[in-house]
Amino acid sequence: MAPDARLSPLAARAGELERSLAAAGCDALLVLASTARDPDLAPFVGPVHVHGSFLIAPRRGEAAFGFLSPMERDEAAASGLRLLTPAALDVARWARQGEPEDVMLANVLERAMLLTGVAPGMRLALAGHAGAGLVQAVCARLVDSGWTFAPGHHLLLSVRKAKTASELEEMRRVAQATCEAMRAVAALLAAAMELDGELWLEGERLCAGRLRREVASTLAAHGLEQPEGNIVAAGADGAVPHTSGRDARILRAREALVVDLYPKGALFADCTRTFCVGTPPPVLAGAHAAVADALAAAHAAALPGQRGWAMQEAACARLAAQGWPTPITQPGTTRGYVHGLGHGVGFELHEYPSFRRHAGAEGLLGVGDVITLEPGLYDPEAGFGVRLEDLVALGGEGPENLTPLPHALDPRAW
Amino acid sequence: MAPDARLSPLAARAGELERSLAAAGCDALLVLASTARDPDLAPFVGPVHVHGSFLIAPRRGEAAFGFLSPMERDEAAASGLRLLTPAALDVARWARQGEPEDVMLANVLERAMLLTGVAPGMRLALAGHAGAGLVQAVCARLVDSGWTFAPGHHLLLSVRKAKTASELEEMRRVAQATCEAMRAVAALLAAAMELDGELWLEGERLCAGRLRREVASTLAAHGLEQPEGNIVAAGADGAVPHTSGRDARILRAREALVVDLYPKGALFADCTRTFCVGTPPPVLAGAHAAVADALAAAHAAALPGQRGWAMQEAACARLAAQGWPTPITQPGTTRGYVHGLGHGVGFELHEYPSFRRHAGAEGLLGVGDVITLEPGLYDPEAGFGVRLEDLVALGGEGPENLTPLPHALDPRAW
Repeated sequence: MAPDARLSPLAARAGELERSLAAAGCDALLVLASTARDPDLAPFVGPVHVHGSFLIAPRRGEAAFGFLSPMERDEAAASGLRLLTPAALDVARWARQGEPEDVMLANVLERAMLLTGVAPGMRLALAGHAGAGLVQAVCARLVDSGWTFAPGHHLLLSVRKAKTASELEEMRRVAQATCEAMRAVAALLAAAMELDGELWLEGERLCAGRLRREVASTLAAHGLEQPEGNIVAAGADGAVPHTSGRDARILRAREALVVDLYPKGALFADCTRTFCVGTPPPVLAGAHAAVADALAAAHAAALPGQRGWAMQEAACARLAAQGWPTPITQPGTTRGYVHGLGHGVGFELHEYPSFRRHAGAEGLLGVGDVITLEPGLYDPEAGFGVRLEDLVALGGEGPENLTPLPHALDPRAW
Repeated sequence: MAPDARLSPLAARAGELERSLAAAGCDALLVLASTARDPDLAPFVGPVHVHGSFLIAPRRGEAAFGFLSPMERDEAAASGLRLLTPAALDVARWARQGEPEDVMLANVLERAMLLTGVAPGMRLALAGHAGAGLVQAVCARLVDSGWTFAPGHHLLLSVRKAKTASELEEMRRVAQATCEAMRAVAALLAAAMELDGELWLEGERLCAGRLRREVASTLAAHGLEQPEGNIVAAGADGAVPHTSGRDARILRAREALVVDLYPKGALFADCTRTFCVGTPPPVLAGAHAAVADALAAAHAAALPGQRGWAMQEAACARLAAQGWPTPITQPGTTRGYVHGLGHGVGFELHEYPSFRRHAGAEGLLGVGDVITLEPGLYDPEAGFGVRLEDLVALGGEGPENLTPLPHALDPRAW
């Protein structure tokens, strides 16, 4: 069920968090973060600009947001949560004593747990992202003091699997800007001229970097960034799904160009299209048709109650029937269909639901989930890849395609 | 000494890394990273797009870069390092067994250490940034298998304190774009009209968000992003150094506007200016003059061999002489000069050298360092802040101000 839209993000998810902690045998959630933009923290504190910080949410009791710099007091207050201030945490005292960072943070956390009723002996679900060396050292100290730990990131992925109304609204906004950027790419490609097989625009050879600049400026106008980069991969670069493509690569007619954009506002969007200027080689046209067919089938199947893995099996069967290797018919293949059908999207680019075979409850699509559907076909020897990816919100009133762009290879048909 | 420019980043720093590991009593460096953009990993692997990955650098022996997804093989290869591939690490086997993430990663790391000659019983300097719960669980498993850990982030901060020639070149590029963005802000402010105390531009009230859009598009044209955001803080917002400012805030004449930009390419730049449209109140003009004077003095003192803390003491003395509270005369003050004079900048926004009192060797400025100098004065009751911040490279042939912008409050004087 999607969270109640009338409540704050933390309040809306308090029940789910409580149940998840209980199921994991944990007494409290501890989120350690280098920045409040941390995907495990931002859903609870909102868009505040705070650096080193943490959240403690006891299973029964009020959650508290701790921060370390008095200069960030106004930002921290904007979270609306109970605050553990640097003064309450005695930060200045540890700093005066010149303690190493791990000793200081362990002292601060011990005090914070005392203030929130999380006593030694209790078990903490640990989430957030921070320096590995610091985490290891701090946790070792807390273990010495009696606390125990369980990995808590997956617990939070489950808690935030279904989006709140305001999260969905933000993802819709980011997806619309992503569509605008993709259309800007199509427009540049459509305007390009061919000369000796190369594409030219504005008196210059058209390079991947030119498309990237257009994407970046379109997204910047909407206040979006690309913390994980993007993929603008022509020809053989596109034949390896995660090769991002070199800016200097001159684009050519009759080759495939994979453009995968995944910008972030408060949350991510994710969308891929594949272009070909000029008549595509038959093998590329055939692969594109098969991928478009698999995407249509995936859209039809993407409903709450469905398992991601069942959809992956169906996509594999469909593409195998067209003669392509798949991870099921040929595990480890680098030709054909070589990856999963999709993934959840949210504060991280890859979230729940999961489309993996061994997924448990997180493998089941639910109301409120936002997922990608992204079949693709790759042929490193022939030097091309084709991927089409939509972002879909599974609302209570049916799925909503957040990236309703054309599928055509030919940018002039857009 | 600055690293040798003719060598690869890892090779150029191999000696320094070896010495640092020895001094820390460690046998190897282990960097755990969620992405190869991790500031502890990027300096060694370059701008490659790889997700979950790690670096093992034995004190004697060749460093190796491990990655977990076969789809990222081309990106990983671009690092030029010895690779530990998913096949070599048996990733598919652990995945098939449906092991939890922490068990899988611990297995992968044990195998990776075997392949790089880092035997159980050895002590690892641990760096990088990753999920806290995962790090805690994986390290606990490795401790059970005989390895021990020491925090390694500060060790890496020391190793990369002096920039390589190509790192400095990139920082110069990012700083130039930052200056361009600051000039674009000044130009909008200079073009604004005053009506009833509010600033108007293009037929609308001028808001902080309008300046932010200009900054974002200017930076995007240079391929830069703002992973830590920025500060566009008017009036009382600027009186708390880390308040970032609200987009909807309408800007007014005769108030202070603090603009602090810290975008990132491969590395960060960092620059602050304070503006005031119209005649500033005398207290603001006085504070600005004092800050400009403190900045000039800091520039004159910023030389290799100097201690950051000594510069902070000098800045405090200078501002205290003007009647302002400082962290030395009044610890914990929120009025007057309330923070440090500067910090190193690099792959992270805050790096070495340190300007803190208790800093050891990392508190000494050296050739190759890139630092900020950023005196400021704040008065939350009067509702204003003033900060001027330059980015300075300490080259062998003298300091280079990478942000040579005007200091004037009045944008029309820019």
